[in-house]
Amino acid sequence: MGLTTLSENRSHGGIQGVYDHASDAVGTTMTFSVYVPPHEDGAKLPVLWYLSGLTCTHANVTEKGAYRQACAQHGIIFVAPDTSPRGDDVPDDEAYDFGKGAGFYVDATQEPWARNFRMRSYIENELPNLVAANFPADMARQGITGHSMGGHGALTIALRNEGRFKSVSAFAPIVSPLNCPWGEKALGGYIGPDKSAWREYDTVALIEDGARLPDLLVDQGTADNFLKDQLKTGLLALAAKKADIPVTIRMQEGYDHSYYFIETFMADHVKWHAERLRQT
Amino acid sequence: MGLTTLSENRSHGGIQGVYDHASDAVGTTMTFSVYVPPHEDGAKLPVLWYLSGLTCTHANVTEKGAYRQACAQHGIIFVAPDTSPRGDDVPDDEAYDFGKGAGFYVDATQEPWARNFRMRSYIENELPNLVAANFPADMARQGITGHSMGGHGALTIALRNEGRFKSVSAFAPIVSPLNCPWGEKALGGYIGPDKSAWREYDTVALIEDGARLPDLLVDQGTADNFLKDQLKTGLLALAAKKADIPVTIRMQEGYDHSYYFIETFMADHVKWHAERLRQT
Repeated sequence: MGLTTLSENRSHGGIQGVYDHASDAVGTTMTFSVYVPPHEDGAKLPVLWYLSGLTCTHANVTEKGAYRQACAQHGIIFVAPDTSPRGDDVPDDEAYDFGKGAGFYVDATQEPWARNFRMRSYIENELPNLVAANFPADMARQGITGHSMGGHGALTIALRNEGRFKSVSAFAPIVSPLNCPWGEKALGGYIGPDKSAWREYDTVALIEDGARLPDLLVDQGTADNFLKDQLKTGLLALAAKKADIPVTIRMQEGYDHSYYFIETFMADHVKWHAERLRQT
Repeated sequence: MGLTTLSENRSHGGIQGVYDHASDAVGTTMTFSVYVPPHEDGAKLPVLWYLSGLTCTHANVTEKGAYRQACAQHGIIFVAPDTSPRGDDVPDDEAYDFGKGAGFYVDATQEPWARNFRMRSYIENELPNLVAANFPADMARQGITGHSMGGHGALTIALRNEGRFKSVSAFAPIVSPLNCPWGEKALGGYIGPDKSAWREYDTVALIEDGARLPDLLVDQGTADNFLKDQLKTGLLALAAKKADIPVTIRMQEGYDHSYYFIETFMADHVKWHAERLRQT
């Protein structure tokens, strides 16, 4: 499981790296970034996964996410994968919300997507093994977060892999693909018309079906253009309440869907994860 | 003096805006960004200018500079101008270090540059008036900083306008265009072969010729590829020592010339300026 170093830069006392590797899961070359904070030789550090939203690559949060200061302070490795398979041989769609840049963290079953659009397997299995083999990561202490489509990814992956993540949070997540246009289009395309098969990719449905999370932090801007029709934070609040999952949903006045919003609350999220990932 | 709002996003409790306006000084439309931190109605806030380096626009530091948290904490307005005139009618050069994106904060005297490449007048006169008229800025409390070519701009503008800036700092500045290839090319092209005319655009020469600064903070990475041939921090240390200017030059082990370096020390610089810009 080799990886190629594309760049490494010192930042906040640690190293921000960008790497690529040949992925078996999605059948293409995949790029991702890892920040390793300053640490003692031989130390193993907790890992925070950040899954990005529609149209993004690893680069958006790496450049704009403002996580390095907090990760250096708390001693946390930060991993930012891409959002879909890439490359000329990968099928695509003209829309921004389907195809490349819009993998939705599912394993597609429909053609022509089934070969490459396997971001669930990539994030759940292949990339963790690569990270564990190449970085000073304590895989017993993992947290996960994400933005928008990546918030959906973080929540559904945490729900399907109960116990793997000691801490879970999200920025403006899509909480129910079953109940929004982005979800209808993406899951309809990747998974097909049988909506019972979508439930394992739907945070609200997974909770309804019995999956559980530790406590959960969500920040959501009130000026987010996608709140009403796509994100529907209220459905998550309701499902979590019924299931007795302690959820902290902070409605942030005047904030939109951009990285200006994410960077504002990133340090809070890193601290939230750090408190739950401390060695016990 | 009208300006057009291109975007405004809430961030760290304040507003990150991007604006453009028709510039008399350079004869083109110019884009710049302003972050206004949270503040009480009617308050006037100190202003920190950040001048960017070669190839940059306002966007690089606005997206990657990680200044908003510190500016919100200290109540400082942050202004990021472009680095050159822009537009199809503006002369250009194929090189990355001359023409568009490489204005060097001079008023060009040579053709075909003399009409548009007047970034000195733009930054020293036109843009401050625009900022004063449109934002809650206390122009009696200004600080200035910049990176690389923009560090050169910040230092030379502060030296030529003694007393205007209560605080001055720089990240990896070009300290003497008279003594480096970037400077030879740019000032030769914009100002012409008479090197005596370059001295007002050379930090070391300005200090030798009697200009003075308040104290000065400089961060410089030891792994910066441009340190030896282009930046030559040592020339500034020597000139400042001879002139009795208190200068804090921090050689930062392992850091390069990128924004990963800048973001690491940005909060220190904002704090340095804040301490000197407090209402007295």
